[in-house]
Amino acid sequence: MASIFTKIVNGEIPCYKVAETEDFLAFLDVNPNAKGHTLCIPKQEVDNIFDLDETTYHGLLAFSRAVAIALKKAVPCLRIGVSVIGLEVPHAHVHLIPLQSMEDARFIQKVSMSNEALQALANAIQAEL
Amino acid sequence: MASIFTKIVNGEIPCYKVAETEDFLAFLDVNPNAKGHTLCIPKQEVDNIFDLDETTYHGLLAFSRAVAIALKKAVPCLRIGVSVIGLEVPHAHVHLIPLQSMEDARFIQKVSMSNEALQALANAIQAEL
Repeated sequence: MASIFTKIVNGEIPCYKVAETEDFLAFLDVNPNAKGHTLCIPKQEVDNIFDLDETTYHGLLAFSRAVAIALKKAVPCLRIGVSVIGLEVPHAHVHLIPLQSMEDARFIQKVSMSNEALQALANAIQAEL
Repeated sequence: MASIFTKIVNGEIPCYKVAETEDFLAFLDVNPNAKGHTLCIPKQEVDNIFDLDETTYHGLLAFSRAVAIALKKAVPCLRIGVSVIGLEVPHAHVHLIPLQSMEDARFIQKVSMSNEALQALANAIQAEL
């Protein structure tokens, strides 16, 4: 069965898109640790990031770097944290999280945002790319 | 002032070394989230991973990938988690954490290991490289 992220790639599930290339997609996490929490994925559905071929692995991390730099400009924060965990969705994804404190990196506290605020934020990050 | 990681690179502070190249070093975190928690660093002292030049950025992530694959062989786990946070030590470092559950990724629970156990573990990971 296609992962939820493949369904997002295919447009079957909507997302707040931040960036897209032929091979990669970035969109806002709708259950964010902190404002601006973004997921970067390869369109190719591979569970474990270390099982990606080397070209796709480095492509994903170059894409994530570009998104992180734009995210830092759009969302005031100390720095952009990076996490790859993958115990829930079996489709490799890089979490980029604007950090104000260590709490934002723990995946315990969540922030609630309206659909309008999420869309405006996605647009603001996209504008920095 | 040199970071604690630069002091480790220079041999002024000892470490449980896992891997080393001309430009990168991997060693065990002595306050691990989980058994096998490893730090991968560039020898060049740069605070934020996204401020590394592109060659060093991709070099660090290629090095981290090789260490993660060896770590997965040496330490039974669901997968290797990746975190880059950097709010404490101003020298870019990639956390590689063997995950049994989400708790191992939160930087709250810590495990205690003897010096002998840490050295044996570093040797076991090194043997898989």
